[in-house]
Amino acid sequence: MRKKVNQHQLEGWINHVQSFTHLGKVPDYIPALAKQNPENIAISIVHLNGECIKAGNLEHTFTLQSISKVISLALALMDQGEDYVFSKVGMEPTGDPFHSIAKLETSNPSKPLNPMINAGALAVTNMVEGSTPDQKVGRLLSFVHELAGDNSITYDEEVASSEFKTSFLNRSLSFFMKQTGVVEGSVEELLDTYTKQCAIDVNIQQLARIGAVFANEGKDLETGRQIIPQHYARICKTFMVTCGMYDASGSFAIRVGIPAKSGVSGAIMGAHKDLGGIAVFGPALDEKGNSVVGMHLLEMLANREDLFIF
Amino acid sequence: MRKKVNQHQLEGWINHVQSFTHLGKVPDYIPALAKQNPENIAISIVHLNGECIKAGNLEHTFTLQSISKVISLALALMDQGEDYVFSKVGMEPTGDPFHSIAKLETSNPSKPLNPMINAGALAVTNMVEGSTPDQKVGRLLSFVHELAGDNSITYDEEVASSEFKTSFLNRSLSFFMKQTGVVEGSVEELLDTYTKQCAIDVNIQQLARIGAVFANEGKDLETGRQIIPQHYARICKTFMVTCGMYDASGSFAIRVGIPAKSGVSGAIMGAHKDLGGIAVFGPALDEKGNSVVGMHLLEMLANREDLFIF
Amino acid sequence: MRKKVNQHQLEGWINHVQSFTHLGKVPDYIPALAKQNPENIAISIVHLNGECIKAGNLEHTFTLQSISKVISLALALMDQGEDYVFSKVGMEPTGDPFHSIAKLETSNPSKPLNPMINAGALAVTNMVEGSTPDQKVGRLLSFVHELAGDNSITYDEEVASSEFKTSFLNRSLSFFMKQTGVVEGSVEELLDTYTKQCAIDVNIQQLARIGAVFANEGKDLETGRQIIPQHYARICKTFMVTCGMYDASGSFAIRVGIPAKSGVSGAIMGAHKDLGGIAVFGPALDEKGNSVVGMHLLEMLANREDLFIF
Amino acid sequence: MRKKVNQHQLEGWINHVQSFTHLGKVPDYIPALAKQNPENIAISIVHLNGECIKAGNLEHTFTLQSISKVISLALALMDQGEDYVFSKVGMEPTGDPFHSIAKLETSNPSKPLNPMINAGALAVTNMVEGSTPDQKVGRLLSFVHELAGDNSITYDEEVASSEFKTSFLNRSLSFFMKQTGVVEGSVEELLDTYTKQCAIDVNIQQLARIGAVFANEGKDLETGRQIIPQHYARICKTFMVTCGMYDASGSFAIRVGIPAKSGVSGAIMGAHKDLGGIAVFGPALDEKGNSVVGMHLLEMLANREDLFIF
Repeated sequence: MRKKVNQHQLEGWINHVQSFTHLGKVPDYIPALAKQNPENIAISIVHLNGECIKAGNLEHTFTLQSISKVISLALALMDQGEDYVFSKVGMEPTGDPFHSIAKLETSNPSKPLNPMINAGALAVTNMVEGSTPDQKVGRLLSFVHELAGDNSITYDEEVASSEFKTSFLNRSLSFFMKQTGVVEGSVEELLDTYTKQCAIDVNIQQLARIGAVFANEGKDLETGRQIIPQHYARICKTFMVTCGMYDASGSFAIRVGIPAKSGVSGAIMGAHKDLGGIAVFGPALDEKGNSVVGMHLLEMLANREDLFIF
Repeated sequence: MRKKVNQHQLEGWINHVQSFTHLGKVPDYIPALAKQNPENIAISIVHLNGECIKAGNLEHTFTLQSISKVISLALALMDQGEDYVFSKVGMEPTGDPFHSIAKLETSNPSKPLNPMINAGALAVTNMVEGSTPDQKVGRLLSFVHELAGDNSITYDEEVASSEFKTSFLNRSLSFFMKQTGVVEGSVEELLDTYTKQCAIDVNIQQLARIGAVFANEGKDLETGRQIIPQHYARICKTFMVTCGMYDASGSFAIRVGIPAKSGVSGAIMGAHKDLGGIAVFGPALDEKGNSVVGMHLLEMLANREDLFIF
Repeated sequence: MRKKVNQHQLEGWINHVQSFTHLGKVPDYIPALAKQNPENIAISIVHLNGECIKAGNLEHTFTLQSISKVISLALALMDQGEDYVFSKVGMEPTGDPFHSIAKLETSNPSKPLNPMINAGALAVTNMVEGSTPDQKVGRLLSFVHELAGDNSITYDEEVASSEFKTSFLNRSLSFFMKQTGVVEGSVEELLDTYTKQCAIDVNIQQLARIGAVFANEGKDLETGRQIIPQHYARICKTFMVTCGMYDASGSFAIRVGIPAKSGVSGAIMGAHKDLGGIAVFGPALDEKGNSVVGMHLLEMLANREDLFIF
Repeated sequence: MRKKVNQHQLEGWINHVQSFTHLGKVPDYIPALAKQNPENIAISIVHLNGECIKAGNLEHTFTLQSISKVISLALALMDQGEDYVFSKVGMEPTGDPFHSIAKLETSNPSKPLNPMINAGALAVTNMVEGSTPDQKVGRLLSFVHELAGDNSITYDEEVASSEFKTSFLNRSLSFFMKQTGVVEGSVEELLDTYTKQCAIDVNIQQLARIGAVFANEGKDLETGRQIIPQHYARICKTFMVTCGMYDASGSFAIRVGIPAKSGVSGAIMGAHKDLGGIAVFGPALDEKGNSVVGMHLLEMLANREDLFIF
């Protein structure tokens, strides 16, 4: 049963959450993110019929950060197949932080528990087809262009370069996985690709449209062409449910119940099979790393429209 | 959009999985379970209109074991409220085994990660109203009678007593939680209640009907009376999605995508909002502790009827 | 080369450390210990020729607490032999806290890493010969009488009973080990024995004399009779070096370099092969659980008399 | 009380352990080590008066590997002082494997538990004075020349280069510590220095002589000049006692009781205050990574000469 929200509702919700913009904290450990204005907030929904509504600061762009993990997973599944991908990366949620390395050591066999934690995402990005970082990044961007229906999207060089210089923990995870055979090839090239992938820069409407393709079982909204095979789109949405919101995935599933993926830039992308793609944005984060404003917007949306899927 | 399955389909599936009955292993660490015949298999669906279909060995009864964790969670939420329950037990899935104690020590604050692992389930059972084990068990049984619409259900004394005598790990978990303030009162009384709760004895149709109440948002199928408040029924189903199938919860969500809870007796209870309650049974377990036949039945059901919910 | 200290030196040191008596904290989690006066401090040395010197509050008695782990280890080795004891308990130091349970779960095979952490000490006490707690406690007391040359020593019933009532973590450890086969028999009886063993009550001179038997390679100071076989006395001293001072064992070995065992009552027992037995006492503890005054006294003694053994 | 062993005894022991040369396994994960002949075994003792005795294959040279950790620790202490070194690296033994990373994550503050595990040794090598890897390696070699009294010692380029190419786990550890501020500067330069340090190539007599300087409290055997300050030599010997033999440090302390450091090349260096420096060699390793022949030689030596130090 298709559901719809209208422009007026979105504007009401945006007004309501203005009072939360200064709760939470803009993260300071990524210099390029630290400069963001917490009052730049936005929401957009792309319905399954392609209709787009939006409210808030619509010009502002932001980087995908961890939201890109869902996109690289879809592409790696298409490039390498399900069996190969899950021979290297697990399917299970974890109670450990997204950047944790301890489980790589204590699990037997050693593989990252799922593709939404950093270790798993690095392993997945490493599987994207391409013999150089440029080729891989090029393919990731082309895929994003298809999903968003917009060929102008690119990555933010300043953010990518700033993260590349300070990604010591991701290098640690990658070298650990190189030791155990989960990652092959050059770690520096992997980090180059990964930081550019995380730095892909979008606006609120583009993000909602990407979410809408997942909501639409992988099919282009207008042409109905299967951009992502249905089964892979479902795999991606399942990981959004079980591990999409960092250490708050379980409580988010209870309180909101929409497949969603969060990024440290303050964006969250949702994909609801009866409603469509959802994008919310607000730079100030709660202690789990999720946008405070974004969480409020999704909770309001879910409760008022009864979007709970279980 | 309501979905339906017919008797004939169930019988076909039961015939199909006969060839899997001797894959997997009947667990030998609980003497009362070790005697089970792996060929006693069954399936039942209770549709949302109350109609029940079933196939396989319909007379055989089995104990709820870990499936009871969903039921005690619903009752504890009704007895103590959401805030109290989740002040003691977390909401997050975990990559650790269901019987693990290590995270109780390394998490800060120390609380069981969720109500589906043993530590969390013990803490939840301890919250069920009642001043003695008899009162608590009495209330749990009355609640099961309401859910199943059958007042004859009781617990298997032999199974309960056998598990009570050998539950050293659950005592270890309980004493650890007594130290940290998650569990209060007598550990021996808690184990008495818990092992009886796990030993509640049902047949396949009764289990499907319990599942149907969860599927029906907590409402009685005939009268529409709200046996479990909607919000609590949803909480229970969310935990079934994120942590219902032990260490295979993540891959089950991908392959099957139905909220479900598994027990070591070989039963699995599902709750699907468009179909109803589902119960499958087969005593031989895979290495994750889930019924081999049960997993096959649910996978067939999900794929043929397209029950994937995300 | 035998070393000697004189009465005058001890008195000087005791005067010097008076200024430290109010650093650190008297632990409040054991009610019977919380009442101790931090100014009750004492030191005693029993030289290898049997000569005893002492200074400070000589009347005050205190319970052995963890120091008893060395004594029960010696008795269990004599009762069961080295092979049996170390089939159940390891020989390796650990970086985890003395009360930790996580390693019991993650080690394969599951055995406590050494006899100085609580899990290992409980397993060792369980091996002391005797069919009832009374018999085991009786044998432990007789052994202490022999070591101290004083048949009047007994346990403090109030301390024992207070610890018995609140030993939830030790019960958790014991039940975990019962599950894995490291501990046999009744956990409640084990806790009864263990809390009485920890509550054995001595004065400063008695403790120094016990240490002197270990220093003297297990031989009675006067008669030369081998109370503990030499090899077992050495095993005990080795554990005092590698794991005797909780999480400060490594830094203590560097700064002091004397085999020593600490207890939460504020006592420390040392055993130096060229000097003899050493006992120091002061109830206020540092954050690692070692007596602040005791550590200062041992550091002064070691540096001024050059007792470093490596 | 000085102790002495004679040439004749050494030869008897070498003959005795011939029968053990094919127990254990020559490690195959370092190609340059995999080629070693397990029958190339040797022992040497350098007494405190400078007299050297030796038996077995005296021409054969081998790389220091982890034995170099003791040497770099002494040099880092001399370069940076005790306070600085131990602000970055702990003093406590650990029950985890020498290459483990999990504790870096779970310890708070994050620092390697001690300088004998790989993480700690990498941090220590990083502290050796010098602005380039060449300068640091040059200083390490000069220091080894002084200790061994032999300026011809250098590192094995093939071993160094082979380890440099495959040190993924050490890179993982180093990047983790770069993230937490324990390690500064270039990780590749650190690995360059570290793999050359581990590849320093010595014969059995040179190694025994290095051990003798530690045994002699840091003083040159002939001139009495203090090459290593006494306190630092003692610190090094203490770590040899508590963590020198990988995961067998505790049982080695019980069975042998001599400060000793083991390397994966099959060499072990001992330092006994009454006897002098001890070197044993045999390429086949037991499952803990210690030379099978070397362990037998040390155990025989300790028991026959009663070298137990506690």
